[in-house]
Parts: sequence; structure tokens; C-alpha cells
Amino acid sequence: MLVVMKNNATEAQVKAVIKEIEGMGYRGVPMPGAQRTAICIVGNTGPVDDSGLMILEGVKETVRVTKQYKLVSRETHPQPTTITVGDINIGAGKPVLMAGPCAVESEEQALTIARRVKKSGAEIFRGGAFKPRTSPFSFQGLERDALKMLAKVKSDLGIPVITEVVDIQNIGLIAKHADILQVGARNMQNFALLKELSKLRHPILLKRGLSATVTEWLTAADYLLAEGNRRIILCERGIRTFEDSIRFSVDISSIAVVKHFSHLPIIVDPSHAAGHFAYVPSISKAAIAAGADGLLIEVHPNPQEALIDGLQSLNIPNFERLMAELRPIAEAVGRYI
Amino acid sequence: MLVVMKNNATEAQVKAVIKEIEGMGYRGVPMPGAQRTAICIVGNTGPVDDSGLMILEGVKETVRVTKQYKLVSRETHPQPTTITVGDINIGAGKPVLMAGPCAVESEEQALTIARRVKKSGAEIFRGGAFKPRTSPFSFQGLERDALKMLAKVKSDLGIPVITEVVDIQNIGLIAKHADILQVGARNMQNFALLKELSKLRHPILLKRGLSATVTEWLTAADYLLAEGNRRIILCERGIRTFEDSIRFSVDISSIAVVKHFSHLPIIVDPSHAAGHFAYVPSISKAAIAAGADGLLIEVHPNPQEALIDGLQSLNIPNFERLMAELRPIAEAVGRYI
Amino acid sequence: MLVVMKNNATEAQVKAVIKEIEGMGYRGVPMPGAQRTAICIVGNTGPVDDSGLMILEGVKETVRVTKQYKLVSRETHPQPTTITVGDINIGAGKPVLMAGPCAVESEEQALTIARRVKKSGAEIFRGGAFKPRTSPFSFQGLERDALKMLAKVKSDLGIPVITEVVDIQNIGLIAKHADILQVGARNMQNFALLKELSKLRHPILLKRGLSATVTEWLTAADYLLAEGNRRIILCERGIRTFEDSIRFSVDISSIAVVKHFSHLPIIVDPSHAAGHFAYVPSISKAAIAAGADGLLIEVHPNPQEALIDGLQSLNIPNFERLMAELRPIAEAVGRYI
Amino acid sequence: MLVVMKNNATEAQVKAVIKEIEGMGYRGVPMPGAQRTAICIVGNTGPVDDSGLMILEGVKETVRVTKQYKLVSRETHPQPTTITVGDINIGAGKPVLMAGPCAVESEEQALTIARRVKKSGAEIFRGGAFKPRTSPFSFQGLERDALKMLAKVKSDLGIPVITEVVDIQNIGLIAKHADILQVGARNMQNFALLKELSKLRHPILLKRGLSATVTEWLTAADYLLAEGNRRIILCERGIRTFEDSIRFSVDISSIAVVKHFSHLPIIVDPSHAAGHFAYVPSISKAAIAAGADGLLIEVHPNPQEALIDGLQSLNIPNFERLMAELRPIAEAVGRYI
Repeated sequence: MLVVMKNNATEAQVKAVIKEIEGMGYRGVPMPGAQRTAICIVGNTGPVDDSGLMILEGVKETVRVTKQYKLVSRETHPQPTTITVGDINIGAGKPVLMAGPCAVESEEQALTIARRVKKSGAEIFRGGAFKPRTSPFSFQGLERDALKMLAKVKSDLGIPVITEVVDIQNIGLIAKHADILQVGARNMQNFALLKELSKLRHPILLKRGLSATVTEWLTAADYLLAEGNRRIILCERGIRTFEDSIRFSVDISSIAVVKHFSHLPIIVDPSHAAGHFAYVPSISKAAIAAGADGLLIEVHPNPQEALIDGLQSLNIPNFERLMAELRPIAEAVGRYI
Repeated sequence: MLVVMKNNATEAQVKAVIKEIEGMGYRGVPMPGAQRTAICIVGNTGPVDDSGLMILEGVKETVRVTKQYKLVSRETHPQPTTITVGDINIGAGKPVLMAGPCAVESEEQALTIARRVKKSGAEIFRGGAFKPRTSPFSFQGLERDALKMLAKVKSDLGIPVITEVVDIQNIGLIAKHADILQVGARNMQNFALLKELSKLRHPILLKRGLSATVTEWLTAADYLLAEGNRRIILCERGIRTFEDSIRFSVDISSIAVVKHFSHLPIIVDPSHAAGHFAYVPSISKAAIAAGADGLLIEVHPNPQEALIDGLQSLNIPNFERLMAELRPIAEAVGRYI
Repeated sequence: MLVVMKNNATEAQVKAVIKEIEGMGYRGVPMPGAQRTAICIVGNTGPVDDSGLMILEGVKETVRVTKQYKLVSRETHPQPTTITVGDINIGAGKPVLMAGPCAVESEEQALTIARRVKKSGAEIFRGGAFKPRTSPFSFQGLERDALKMLAKVKSDLGIPVITEVVDIQNIGLIAKHADILQVGARNMQNFALLKELSKLRHPILLKRGLSATVTEWLTAADYLLAEGNRRIILCERGIRTFEDSIRFSVDISSIAVVKHFSHLPIIVDPSHAAGHFAYVPSISKAAIAAGADGLLIEVHPNPQEALIDGLQSLNIPNFERLMAELRPIAEAVGRYI
Repeated sequence: MLVVMKNNATEAQVKAVIKEIEGMGYRGVPMPGAQRTAICIVGNTGPVDDSGLMILEGVKETVRVTKQYKLVSRETHPQPTTITVGDINIGAGKPVLMAGPCAVESEEQALTIARRVKKSGAEIFRGGAFKPRTSPFSFQGLERDALKMLAKVKSDLGIPVITEVVDIQNIGLIAKHADILQVGARNMQNFALLKELSKLRHPILLKRGLSATVTEWLTAADYLLAEGNRRIILCERGIRTFEDSIRFSVDISSIAVVKHFSHLPIIVDPSHAAGHFAYVPSISKAAIAAGADGLLIEVHPNPQEALIDGLQSLNIPNFERLMAELRPIAEAVGRYI
């Protein structure tokens, strides 16, 4: 950390800052510049709390040199992490397609979609059981019943399933039925939830908060790793911007940025971001070309009858066409679906 | 709701939309325009789910005429709501000052600050017991011990206390010690938590999510009212924008907008927004002049030694000066501190 | 347009609105709903100015049914527009690569880069002559001299050139030397400049303003078409968001959205968006996979010696590698570089 | 400036960076830390161009210690600047009210409004002659005729006038008639225009760009000061955020931030920000309480008949009431209207 002094800071103020730094157990080395002095903190082994320094007379600002996250950092763990679920490897080169309805509506609906998306090449079945909804008056999912339907899909078709966990109470229940537990964007910084999930050994898919920077997202992932869980998958699902033609703007550069700074795999959810099925194929292709490790796509046999978010779901023929279009792109970037 | 057709939509497509609307139990009235036809949905008594319509051939978009929230709306409850805590009334004209440290650090610290801020005119003492922190490696609050210190402040000085609740497990414990329970910005859409809090009869202070629109914020407040709790206070604490000279941008217009659409009282937290004590007075004065029902301000006797967020805390002389400056502004807007 | 009345609007207020609409030369048809009445405006042939309506008693809001732009709309011109420059076609399927240095620094530099990028498959040479810079104390480009160097590149190598126009005074001069004139993001709504450019018949590349919605961008393009110029190319160059790991966030969905609503071709500038060469390849591949009609990429033989923006420039070997990687992606989406 | 090395940077890479710094004419002092080395640049007298450094092997990032702007900085000019127009002083304590219609529509309209707002306490008359409009098909102002009407207002009533300049061609014409020239938000970085205006000695009001940071805004103001004009007034007019209940979010903290870093006066335009007259009074009061040096408010005798932006204009009784409400707030913050 660097402590930047005001350009009229006195010698005494600089000394007071150095004394404070020494009181914290580090060394402070003054660097006189053309306009002002900066003081470099040396000897720390982790992040420095700057609140005691910022408040001193003559201090203009502090500048953090090291990022706040640790366990997810490529500096801690230089090789990319691969998450294995059954015989599927996420983060190992081949993009993994996760597909299914926003909400599980019936056993028949779940089985029908699962059969079709599996046949088209999807390797993991997604289906919401507990749904976090903006309004308390909206449909909140079939909950416990939906979990049983997911279990049925898994046992009948041998396809692993992913579903969202929205509170601590149901972690045990969901962990019994699901192969991957998903944390939604609105819970990205629900730290109480993350702490509990870190005690599991199930893979956790952590969606990016809708206004979280990549740094905050990676720091939240540190909570999931803190108690020992190493099987974390990141999911870019669009960020809140001023643009109003889509629901959320996919931050396509986050794929390269995450891969630069972290060893965790990253997938993309184009459906929630776009909010409209017409834009899902273009974003999906972009994500695979940019290097994403997979996609999470909503599919519904009759989108116009879906209980939630029908508009953003692909129908089955559209999903099949998209799978066919993704294959050569994956190959073009040296990967194979 | 209005269903807007594409400008080349056929007669048959218009008819299919009307039929679909009738299947939903409403009436659809076509409105031919210069370039396109729009179809008005008539006969609904609540929000209409448009997912089945958006998907039909020839439909361009749907336009929602009514907001999603209900219970917090001024249309449901035209008079402003006043929340009474002991002999203090929030939302009744006189702005209410809530002040104290970001985190309770010791009984002595809590009592010292509480005595001083009470003397300066603060009516409610704030102090964090459970702290949601961005990184798992940061100080997370004194938790249970801090609650006892808050109880001591309350019994010794007779000042009500507010503290944050971060998970469902500790609701009962916190509700036993605190007069007002605070929901932090990162939990604004932690619906599981909101549902539990709605069963209480304690006042709840709901901070705005850092990227929530006013509409989403009011819709989240509907969760708190849904199970019968009527004692809800909103708290603007700054939104995430591109501006980087402060931590969050206070949306000053949200005060007028909330008062226009909702009956709930609204206060402002300038400390977390600014992130720097130097900007707290200017924002505080603006908030009171704009019509806010109160302020939530961080105060620490020695900000440079605070365990969390010292930089944004006013020291006691600065708080006293601010209180003196706020009084004539409150009077100027017809209110009295 | 739809005029939505408040839910307690009186019969008389509804009538007053209808009378006002008739005064504007249209018809107003009331649509009574469950909670409120809406009034549909019928008979207009263009956008309606709602300012006189919004102000009337009892009016809650107006809802615009038609977008503000006209000439760029696919509804006006259903087939995609192709821009021909020499024997290059932009918007005709094959993505067009425009590459070169941020600023032209010398004839030798320009010729060297142009030779290399042309050899690698770039079809248009980019080079800044007049540079808009955030600070008045920064290097502003070689101006008139740079234009001569661009002319030399063109005549020696037979490659068309694109350069930025920053004010009206120099339009004539630049139009004499350049094949395509570029309008920078900060000038997207410099309407005086757009009006003059619309009188030319040169192709104009219009960069998206850094906080312009797609709708505002297309409406600004209407200025370029208004005086008869039909050769307009759009360029997505990233939008301002809260994310701080890159300079601007490429709005990857804008490609599909623009193609949905407009007939104009759209290319992507990954260099200015990323601000760092390491992220340029990932974003470039995403853009081509998403359906962009081309890329505008900064290339410099010695990025560390560039006078401006060296950090975001690819060096020549990196550009050659990127070209090789883009080719199979373009083929995978049915296009050929 | 600080150059931060990667944590695996070699000794040789550190040396290469120091050599590069020396080649730039400065000194580089290495600061070994716990995880990485940082190199401090010493000896520069102005901003350092880091592009040559960022590109070197082993460099992680550079950290700028000094802001990019100079002439507007309080470090250059510690005392606040006062702008005198006739016998009115802007930035001298008493807030200055500028009021009038969005667009001048007729001599009678201009004179009527000017008489009324002057009587209520406004000291400067605003009125648009040249209007920058989002769409080429919208009303663009009465231009030259409007300037004559402004001149008439000035000569008849003795009130100074402010109007917007949208291109270089008309600077001379406008400067002949107007006392203050306004640069609109969309032209904040129209550097060609700023350079010309810097040659004048008229006061210039520079509106903040809708997505400009305070730093970028102040750096743009440096262009206005660069050629010798010292009479610059800043105007906060709301920034683009995700919030959709108003048109732009007033960044209320920008008042304190600008006053902290710059010597220039700052006023607020609540009308364009709010986009709705109902929110103008609340924002106006907030601005004065926060310390703004004035307000720019739209007033129209019959807002429902205004040719542009009627919705955001106060009618005359509402303006009179607001003036009466602002007075005690100004006094409460030690200023007098």
C-alpha cells in the first residue's frame, strides 16, 4: 500500500504517518516526489487496513497495490481448476451446456425437456425449484415437489442436475437431490449463505451480482473457498447498465478478465441477461468464442405457457439449432462440444 | 397492459392475440394506429403476466401501465405512515437522527458515543453487531457480545437502538435486544430474510440495494409488509454509478420519488455513500432540505482507530457541528430537530 | 402513444385530455381498465409531442409505442445495407478488418504497419490524424501532416483509409484524403458535426457514445441520413459501466439488437473498450461470433513507444495470430475473412 | 506515479523499468514489498505518460498519484473563483438563480417570463436559441431570431442573459448578444468548441457530460482555461444511471467534491435532471443546502404549450413558491438569496 500525502504536507505529518505504520507492525518508506511525498508500506503479508492512516493530517489518499481476494487468485493457484461432476469436466476445455426450464413445473415437463436437451448435447439439466422473485405476489416455484422431479430426471436419464438454493434452511434438502447448487445474482453477497455452502463439498455455481465488479465477485467466491470447498464455478449473467434494449448487459470481457486473475472456470447465462429469446443465440456464440467454459440456457417446450420467464426461453427446435451452430465455433477456438 | 403489434402484423395475428387475452380471462380491445395496431387489455384486477403474449407471432412488445408493488403504494394507503419507537415518531415531520459507530467495539466505546450523540440531539443509537463484509478475512463484528452492549446502552441511557440483521438464524436474538432491525443493501433482495422479518412487529429499516431502482426497492418492501408488519422505514444509501470520487452516489431525487409513490418514511445514510467524512455534512444537509425523514450517521470518538470504516465516520466535534448546522435547515423546510 | 390517467382521475379530466389530443389533430380513444383509464392516440403519422399532455390534471404518464428513429429503422428499409468502399463490401457477410495505429506518427510508421496488417488480411487502414484528447496538455495528433501520410499509404499500397473528423472546419480537408470518416464516441451527439457530414457521400463510421443507449445511437445516425448520406456504419466501442477491470464494457448484445432494429452494418472496436491488449483477442472473437460486420483494431509495431494508447495496441505478431484465430470463427458463423 | 510489478517479476525486469524511466528523464526508485516490488517515479513536474511502461515485461499496473487536471485545481489556485456578470457575483456566497424557458418561443413569451422571474428574485434570464435535439426531426430553436429576443429582454429589463452555443460557427453571433455562454452536456468533450470558447473573455457555463466523472469534467474545464479565459462556471445536471423514475440522477455529492478539488463555482440544473416539474423543488432545495452557488431552472407560463420540455418546466406560481422556500434554506447555510 502507498500512502499519498497532500502537496502541502509538513515534515511532521510525514513522520506521524510513518510512526502510525510502524505501530501497525510494518515499515513506512518515504518517497519524495516533485509535488508531494508518498509513503510506501513494506513488510505486510496481507491486505493493510488503511482506515487509521486515511484519517491522519496531511494524508491525501491511500493506494492499494494488491487485490482483496486470495483463494480464488491465480497467484495462489496458477493452474486452472477443473470441476468434475460424474464424467463431465467443467473448465477442462470442452464447453459444458446446462439447459432446462426456468422453473420445474411438472414431472412430465421436466422429463420431456431433459430428454430433448440431452439428445441435443446438453450435459447438465437445470430447473428451478425455489425461485427468488422480485414481488411477493409472484409464483415462487414448486419447491420440495420440484426437487423430487429433478431427482426423477437424474435417475431416469442419468443427467446431473443443477438448481438454485435461496436460503440456509434448505441447503441440506437441496444438496440431497442436486449435483450442483446455484447461488443467484441477488444472493452473491449473502455472506451467511456463502459460509454455509463453503462447508459442503458439492460444486457451487456462483452467479455474478447484477452490479458487482469482477473484483467483488471474486472476493465473494473467496467465502465459498474459505471453509474448504474447492469446487466453485463462476457464472456471468449480465450486469446492470443504462442500456434498456435488453434486461442486463453481458460483460463479455469478464471472461478474459476472470481467466487472467483467477483459476476458477466461468460460464455464461445468456437467457437471464437478454430477457428475450431472440438475442440468446448471438450472445451464446460470443461467449463460447470468448473462451467461456460453458453456458446455462433456458429451454421450454412451450415458452408462451411457461409460468415464469417464458419470453427468455428457447423452444426446443431453437435450442437444437443453437447447439448445431455452437459446435463449429467451439471447434474454431480449439474446443469441442 | 398494452400489447403493441409489429407494423406488418396481420389481421389474423391481431385476432390470435385477442383470443389469447380472452383465454386469460380478460378482454382485448384493438386500437388501430397510423403505423401499427395496439391491443389494450381490459378487465384485469392485478398485474398481467405477459409471457404468453410476448411470444405470439406479430407481437412487438407489451407495455405495463401499473407498477408491480402494491402494499407500499400511496394508491393503497394515501396517508403517510408514521413509525413510533418509544416516544419518537419517524415520518411525522421532525427529522430523526440515528447515530453511532459502524461496529460496536466495546461497552465503553458504545456508551461514550451514545452519551455524546444523544446530548447533541440524536434520538436513536446505531451500532453494528453482525457485519456483512466483502471479504471473509475482514473483521465481522462482535456479534452476540455487541448485542449485550447495545442492551446496556439502551437501559443506561434510555435511547432506542438499531442494528443490522444478516441472517435468519439470529433474527430472534437481535429482535430481543434491538428496537429497530436493519436490512443491509446487499440483502435487499434476500427474500427469505424479508419473509421472516415480515412476521415480526418490530420496525424494519430497509436499505436500498446498491443497484436497485426505486421500483425494485418498493417491491422488496412489499415482502416486509406481506405478512403483516406495517412498520417499515426506507433508507437511501447511495447507488452504484460510474462516478469514482465517492463510494456510492446518493440518489437525492429518490426522496421526492419515494414520497410521491409510497406512504413509507425515508431516511438517508450519507456515511456509507460518501465513504469519506469530508462529504458527509454536505450530503446530510441536502437530504434534510430535500425532505428526508431522518439520517443514519456514523460517529466514532477516534475514527483513526475504528476497526471498520473509520474514514467515513465523523468524530464527535464534527457531529456536534453538523447537528447545529442541520437545525436551521430543518426549520427552513418546516420541520424541527 | 398511450396516455395513462391516474387511478382517481375524473371523467372531466379524461375529457380534457381527449380535447387536447383533438387540438393536436389526432383522435383520442378512452380505454377504461380495472384500476385506471388509458387514452390511445390514433391518427398520428409520426412521433407525438407529449409535453402538452403530461401537464394536464389527472395524467399519470404517457407511453411511447414507436421508437424515435426513422431512417435507420428496419421498418423503413427491411434489407440490410451494404457499404462499398473500392472493392470491399461492409455488411455483406464477410467481416471487414480495419487495423492500424491509434495515431499516425510518421510516414514510415504508417507504411510499415499498413504493409503488415494488409498482408495479414486487414482490408482498411486506420490511423488518427486529429485526436480528441481528454486533457488539453496531451498530444493531439499530427493533423494535416498525418493526412498526407495516410494519402501516401493509400496510393502506395492501394488500401482504403479511415480517420477521425473532430470538427466541422476540417471536414473538407479530411474528405479529400480519407475513404471513410470516423465520428468519435464523444461527438456522437455533436449534431452540428453530424449535419455537415450528412451532406457528404463518403461513408461515415459512427461510434457509439460512451453512455448512449442503442436507441439514442440509432437516432443520432438519423442525423447522418437526414441530408441524404446513406453510407453509414455503426461502431460499438464499449459503454461506461461500474466495472473497473477494463476501460469500457463492450455491449455484446448491441450487435443482435442493432441488427434487429436497423438495416445498418455494425462493427466493433475492442481496443478502446478493453484499454489493454491482453483482452483484445477474446473480445474480437466474441464480436465476430455474435455477428459483427467487422472490427477496428489498433496495431503498433512497438506499442511501448506509441505516442498514445500503446497499452491497448496489439503488436504485429499478436495481430497476425489474432487474424489466424478469427478466420475459423468467421467460417463457423457462415462468413469468411 | 508508481509502477507496480507482478509478484513474479525478475530483478532484470525491475532494472529494465528503471532504465525506461530514466530514459524519460526521471528517476525510478524500487520499493520491495512483501509480495511484489513497486517502483516510484521521482522528478517529474507534470503528469507522466505511462504507455511505454505498461507494456514492459513484468509490469502489473501503474498508479497515478496526481489528477490529470491542472488549471482548475485548488492546488493551483487555492481561493475560490468569483465570476462577476454586471453587478452579480457567482461563487461569492449568495446563490444566483438563473431562470427562464427551455426555448425562446417569441418576444412576448420571453419578456413575460423574464419580468416574472426577475420579480421573484432570479438574477439571470435563461432561454434557448439554438437547441441540440436527439432527433433531427425535432424543433431546433428559433436560432438568430431568438438571440434578438434575448437582446430585447436584456435591454428592456436590465437582466443578463445566458444561452447555449452548439457549434463554433455561431460563437461570435451568440457572444454579441449573451452575457454567459452555455456548453451543453453532450458537448462537454467537444474539444474543438471548448478551444474556441477559451479565447473569449465571456463567462462560460460548462454542463457536466451525462456520463462524465467529476475528474473528466474538471479536465474538460481545463480546455476552457487553457487559452486564458478564467470565467468558468460548472453546472451539475444529473448523470446517467440505471434509475428510471427520473431522467438523470443529480449527483448531489459532486458539489462537495468539486469544491474540495477545484476553485470554480458550481451550480445545479434540477429541471433537465428530473425531467418532471414535481421533483424540481426537492432537488433545488437539496442543491442549495449542499452548498451550490446557484440554480438553473426552467420556467414557462404555460408548460403544457411549451414547444420543448414543457413537462420539466415550473409554471410561474410554482417558481415563485420555490423562490420563497429557497430563501430560508440559503440563510440556514449562511447565504442569502
